[in-house]
Amino acid sequence: MVADTDTLRDVSVETVMDDLGRRARVAARALALAPTAAKNAALAAMADEIRAAAPAILAANAADLADARAKGLIASFIDRLTLTGPRIAAMAEGLTAVAALPDPVGRVLAAWDRPNGLKIERVATPIGVIGIVYESRPNVTADAGALCLKSGNAALLRGGSDGFRSSGAIVAALRRGLATAGLPEDAIQLVPTRDRAAVGAMLAGLSGNIDVIVPRGGKSLVARVQQDARVPVFSHLEGICHVYVDAAADLAMAVRIVVNAKMRRTGICGAAETLLVDRACAATHLVPIVDALKAAGCEIRASAEVRKLVPDAVPATAADWSTEYLDAIISVALVDGVGGAIRHIETHGSHHTEAIVTEDPAAAERFLNEIDSAILLWNASTQFADGGEFGMGGEIGIATGKMHARGPVGVDQLVSFKYQVRGTGQTRP
Amino acid sequence: MVADTDTLRDVSVETVMDDLGRRARVAARALALAPTAAKNAALAAMADEIRAAAPAILAANAADLADARAKGLIASFIDRLTLTGPRIAAMAEGLTAVAALPDPVGRVLAAWDRPNGLKIERVATPIGVIGIVYESRPNVTADAGALCLKSGNAALLRGGSDGFRSSGAIVAALRRGLATAGLPEDAIQLVPTRDRAAVGAMLAGLSGNIDVIVPRGGKSLVARVQQDARVPVFSHLEGICHVYVDAAADLAMAVRIVVNAKMRRTGICGAAETLLVDRACAATHLVPIVDALKAAGCEIRASAEVRKLVPDAVPATAADWSTEYLDAIISVALVDGVGGAIRHIETHGSHHTEAIVTEDPAAAERFLNEIDSAILLWNASTQFADGGEFGMGGEIGIATGKMHARGPVGVDQLVSFKYQVRGTGQTRP
Repeated sequence: MVADTDTLRDVSVETVMDDLGRRARVAARALALAPTAAKNAALAAMADEIRAAAPAILAANAADLADARAKGLIASFIDRLTLTGPRIAAMAEGLTAVAALPDPVGRVLAAWDRPNGLKIERVATPIGVIGIVYESRPNVTADAGALCLKSGNAALLRGGSDGFRSSGAIVAALRRGLATAGLPEDAIQLVPTRDRAAVGAMLAGLSGNIDVIVPRGGKSLVARVQQDARVPVFSHLEGICHVYVDAAADLAMAVRIVVNAKMRRTGICGAAETLLVDRACAATHLVPIVDALKAAGCEIRASAEVRKLVPDAVPATAADWSTEYLDAIISVALVDGVGGAIRHIETHGSHHTEAIVTEDPAAAERFLNEIDSAILLWNASTQFADGGEFGMGGEIGIATGKMHARGPVGVDQLVSFKYQVRGTGQTRP
Repeated sequence: MVADTDTLRDVSVETVMDDLGRRARVAARALALAPTAAKNAALAAMADEIRAAAPAILAANAADLADARAKGLIASFIDRLTLTGPRIAAMAEGLTAVAALPDPVGRVLAAWDRPNGLKIERVATPIGVIGIVYESRPNVTADAGALCLKSGNAALLRGGSDGFRSSGAIVAALRRGLATAGLPEDAIQLVPTRDRAAVGAMLAGLSGNIDVIVPRGGKSLVARVQQDARVPVFSHLEGICHVYVDAAADLAMAVRIVVNAKMRRTGICGAAETLLVDRACAATHLVPIVDALKAAGCEIRASAEVRKLVPDAVPATAADWSTEYLDAIISVALVDGVGGAIRHIETHGSHHTEAIVTEDPAAAERFLNEIDSAILLWNASTQFADGGEFGMGGEIGIATGKMHARGPVGVDQLVSFKYQVRGTGQTRP
């Protein structure tokens, strides 16, 4: 089913996509009833097939890379597109890790009895068909397919066109694994065309055959999906993450956490973008933290008050407080205690991930309770905002919306539920 | 804040609605942090205010009723619009019942530790602002306001225009109760105009100040909301509910359950619309069940096969299998065992509520597991599809979608969650 645009010349993209949607729905129905053992056997077979197909995957990737280089795409793009032997091995290990997760389907989420004897259970069920729209990062193909399969959902994958051949080779291997385990191959489908109209068709919902869309990629991709989707979306537009250093912070810990939160990797959504320091400890804590950031290669954009203590800092403009740099730049301001930090974050943040450094449990609990972000951390780096770090066996994305899923979206968020009610002949009076 | 259209002559509906949205968001932020005791005190004060305001509410209702009668509205509409002393007392008792429910906010939904020592908790949080669009049933005003308040959400209510004065008097009482308990009055707001453009503004999301819309009413209202809403919706379009009588059913129980499921109240969404009888017990079970339905005043629309045993039944057309009669009419077909019942329901149902009558646990479990409906019942009437009957202290609506909420939507579904992560200085390697 993986073909290039050329082979689709005589059928419309709409026809192709409608067919994909229908096949996904049929597969989803079968998958919803698949026993845990069959899903795990499929994941194991998929891992084997990925390993066995490594030469074919690398060849497909080499073709993608040659085109990407000829187009003059930038180095970071090329890096994300590049597959290697170790990266393919990691992809296979990822499939095995998902097999080891508990099956979220069929889990009893709540159970209670009624005075009339009815026994009510809320039981987890798959959602149905999940559409994933991502950039040219072939490894997302295997990750997303595995998480959808484990949660009993069919996956409809639309990867970036520059990774088209790589994703095709990976999906072919995944589908062989599904077939080996006796599960429908259409549980994982790749959109077989580079035509951008395919994305539009997915966002329109494929006549009810897509239940949720997960965009994975940069801000322009996510913004387009959020704007145009007629089905629910799990996503975040940006991660304007904060670290607040309280007067009661351990200074050495604050330095370690701030430098890690900002500089470990600057391009991920959980990277800190703004440092807030309690005015009460500015004299002791600000300069050592800023010096450590500078030593790690970070540019400082500071409020006027901060610049009195850090004269060589770049003056921050109003825009800096709501900018996701995704780079070695941090904005720095002073605030009045945890209350001031909360106000700043609620005003300028993106409800993604925020950390407080303090030895004062009351301040920490207030920060954790009062801020309306997906992830709040006490004495830990914002870079832990990641499904793998949360122990979810990977993530299909991170959501900052508040409907259904929030934070790292793992298999436990890729399910819905239904009520099973067991009676003994009860009728309603 | 409750004014009639006339007072709005010189400001646009958009301006009024935008202001309402902003005030709702401010109130929601305060409400999210309100302690359980304050919310319960408000609910108790709201109940007192409703009782004290009974004369004013009845006077407002009398004015609404006079207009409705002058317009010649039908008896069932007038009945839903009518308030009486006992109905107002029941409304106040409903508020007290919601106060007695456990607070869903702050509940730890899951907790686990990571090998690096991070302690992760998933904690329930309010959603934010909930818009409720309902028909001229004044009691919904108090129910919806109470459920939103208990779950820490601000409610923006848009009731049917024929109940405008009644809802206004009720909301005024509710807001006095909020003020008594020191909570923001804007936690419960009624749209202060009958102008239908107000609904359009709500469906557009009030510039991000509505998080979810709950339509309560007939099919045309729900269809419009589902079609036009640019924010998530908790709703169901129709309840095409089935009762399947298995060959292993106790006949007396089957008769009781089918008659109750169809005839107790025919106009509610959990009323059965189709009876499926196992071909293997048609000879013994079909006629007694159909006779009991007929004796209760029900019209029978039957497949050709059923009509051989019930010759006076109306022939069913293809449309009957996907029709929600909401009336004393039932469609009847024979199927091949539980597998046939599942196929019929998955083909023709609306994923709302289905019941199986059987003494065979294996057949029952298959029915409960394989059908993708919000509520599945074994040996109990479909008329139990109700938040009150589920012990949820009422419901803001019933949802057949699979995102976030499903089935009766009570306070436990009116929450989102966030992650609180407690560390001891961890940084990510």
